[in-house]
Amino acid sequence: MTPVKSRVTVVGSGNWGSVAAKLIASNTLRLNSFHDEVRMWVYEEKLPTGEKLTQVINRTNENVKYLPGVKLGKNVVADPDLENAVKDANMLVFVTPHQFMEGICKRLVGKIMPNAEAISLIKGMEVKKEGPCMISSLISDQLGVNCCVLMGANIANEIAVEKFSEATVGYRKDKQTADQWVHLFNTSYFMVSAVQDVEGVELCGTLKNVVAIAAGFVDGLDMGNNTKAAIMRIGLREMKAISKLLFPTVKDSTFFESCGVADLITTCLGGRNRKCAEAFARNGGKRSFDELEAEMLQGQKLQGVSTAKEVYEVLSHRKWLELFPLFSTVHEICIGQLPPTAIVKYREQPPKFSIVEGSIQFF
Amino acid sequence: MTPVKSRVTVVGSGNWGSVAAKLIASNTLRLNSFHDEVRMWVYEEKLPTGEKLTQVINRTNENVKYLPGVKLGKNVVADPDLENAVKDANMLVFVTPHQFMEGICKRLVGKIMPNAEAISLIKGMEVKKEGPCMISSLISDQLGVNCCVLMGANIANEIAVEKFSEATVGYRKDKQTADQWVHLFNTSYFMVSAVQDVEGVELCGTLKNVVAIAAGFVDGLDMGNNTKAAIMRIGLREMKAISKLLFPTVKDSTFFESCGVADLITTCLGGRNRKCAEAFARNGGKRSFDELEAEMLQGQKLQGVSTAKEVYEVLSHRKWLELFPLFSTVHEICIGQLPPTAIVKYREQPPKFSIVEGSIQFF
Repeated sequence: MTPVKSRVTVVGSGNWGSVAAKLIASNTLRLNSFHDEVRMWVYEEKLPTGEKLTQVINRTNENVKYLPGVKLGKNVVADPDLENAVKDANMLVFVTPHQFMEGICKRLVGKIMPNAEAISLIKGMEVKKEGPCMISSLISDQLGVNCCVLMGANIANEIAVEKFSEATVGYRKDKQTADQWVHLFNTSYFMVSAVQDVEGVELCGTLKNVVAIAAGFVDGLDMGNNTKAAIMRIGLREMKAISKLLFPTVKDSTFFESCGVADLITTCLGGRNRKCAEAFARNGGKRSFDELEAEMLQGQKLQGVSTAKEVYEVLSHRKWLELFPLFSTVHEICIGQLPPTAIVKYREQPPKFSIVEGSIQFF
Repeated sequence: MTPVKSRVTVVGSGNWGSVAAKLIASNTLRLNSFHDEVRMWVYEEKLPTGEKLTQVINRTNENVKYLPGVKLGKNVVADPDLENAVKDANMLVFVTPHQFMEGICKRLVGKIMPNAEAISLIKGMEVKKEGPCMISSLISDQLGVNCCVLMGANIANEIAVEKFSEATVGYRKDKQTADQWVHLFNTSYFMVSAVQDVEGVELCGTLKNVVAIAAGFVDGLDMGNNTKAAIMRIGLREMKAISKLLFPTVKDSTFFESCGVADLITTCLGGRNRKCAEAFARNGGKRSFDELEAEMLQGQKLQGVSTAKEVYEVLSHRKWLELFPLFSTVHEICIGQLPPTAIVKYREQPPKFSIVEGSIQFF
């Protein structure tokens, strides 16, 4: 008896969603354990030509709006009907803007296969005062499915043209399912590995944006590579520390993976958070982030500034502000309470504490 | 009874040695546990003006040859006589080019205080087939003293102008001595912390140069930040893995310190190893490193290429080549056996092994 083949649907079709569909489609053709066809749910739009986006994708194999010039593969089928797109799939890939996920989950309750597995590629969940609202938990809870995550140093346009990159799958318990996701995504230019740490992997994807703001300040102050490297390192330490305090199961080793140090490096070298923060510091904090964002990002949104605020609320609520000098300083600079130069003014001694199994130990 | 004050001598007066003397001199003035005066051994040179270098340093408080424009502090005393410089010091800071250390140690046998403590700031020890020849071990063995190390993301000229930076002290057993070194170096813009891992800290300082060569290739191939971040991460993983195989006491956490991830970032962003490797890749490997070094570095030497060769010999000798695809590929590219593009061609799966207490476990 041959094992049943898996069917994959990608929920989302933006820049990164389209690249994910391309990666997956190359593997479903190649591997026997998957049906060739990859269904991609597309939020229908009418193009300036009068045609519908799904029709153009299905005719040209290109997402002309969000990933022009790149062939997705003939086995990618764009589908404007969300329920129809997911109904036969036992592997669901979620890759939409995070603010849409709650609505999408509500629409999908009772509409997916009972044995379906999910993975979230969505970066930037919200950090609420009581703790982060993980997108993977939202999906798990609402749809009653196991949900992995995939994060990493993943600039969609670079992976689209098959430049070498890596990614990390975070899973909760089921290593076999994690391996199946690795097989589905892994290619010769996109190296994927799995770690048993959903929260660690997912938190990296959000918290790095706060560090990128700090790195941008350093660039704007013309402090040089040395200072920038120090700030990135302190940022990585604080990412690790807060993750472990919020989720004692988070592992140190996760921060050595692509989702940790590599994504942090990419984000602090390029990226819009860094860029706007550089401009903010060059203007001595006299022009607000809202103003710079409107001017520089053509409608794209800055996540680092709002994440910094959310993280500050958590730290303040739990009385951890002093333990996280970089995170708290970033927010205080963003709101104009401190000048940008404060990013490199630390007390002479680093905080005298360590985190052991999710609790703080002072020494 | 007041405790005996420590006397510090800096052995070496190049670019980094002069900055180290400046950092130390600001602290010996400020802290009661140290004598104000910091003696600095200077290899005597005659300047074009006809004056001796030590005389000019002592008159102007500036190392006009190796750190022009920066005041070292009036309490820094340049001394051309090595034996005289060390004879009263119980804290010896070694910061010379590594190839001079063997000769200096020979001259110092029996000439230092019996209770002296040493620290090495020397990056780039040699990696011999049987294992690395640690400078800290050379100093310990030859002089019969305890020897710490100080490494980190430390571009001398940036620290000289008091730009924010960090460093890591590695110590073997004696935490109290390590803390004394931290006090001696730590300032508001130079944040030092100590970890119990001499070998881990010291190996970081050498191995990062191999990764910088890889990062330079990626730059020369115009692969983008995403690929560069991935290569840096794989490099960090291999630095960690080889260090743990060579010295089972090496700790994972050391690679999160300034000597690890931060120094790696600085070196892969700027630095001469990266720069020459970029030129090498742009020329498709058709011009040798010797040629590029002569043309681009005005007499400075490239450490990454020779370290890559030394590391390759260790890997080959121990039959570990397959476990370290990045390190081995860097060397094979350097000697023209592979094209620069090979830096991003890995097998589809990362090596299936982990290192537990210094031995390899396959799974």
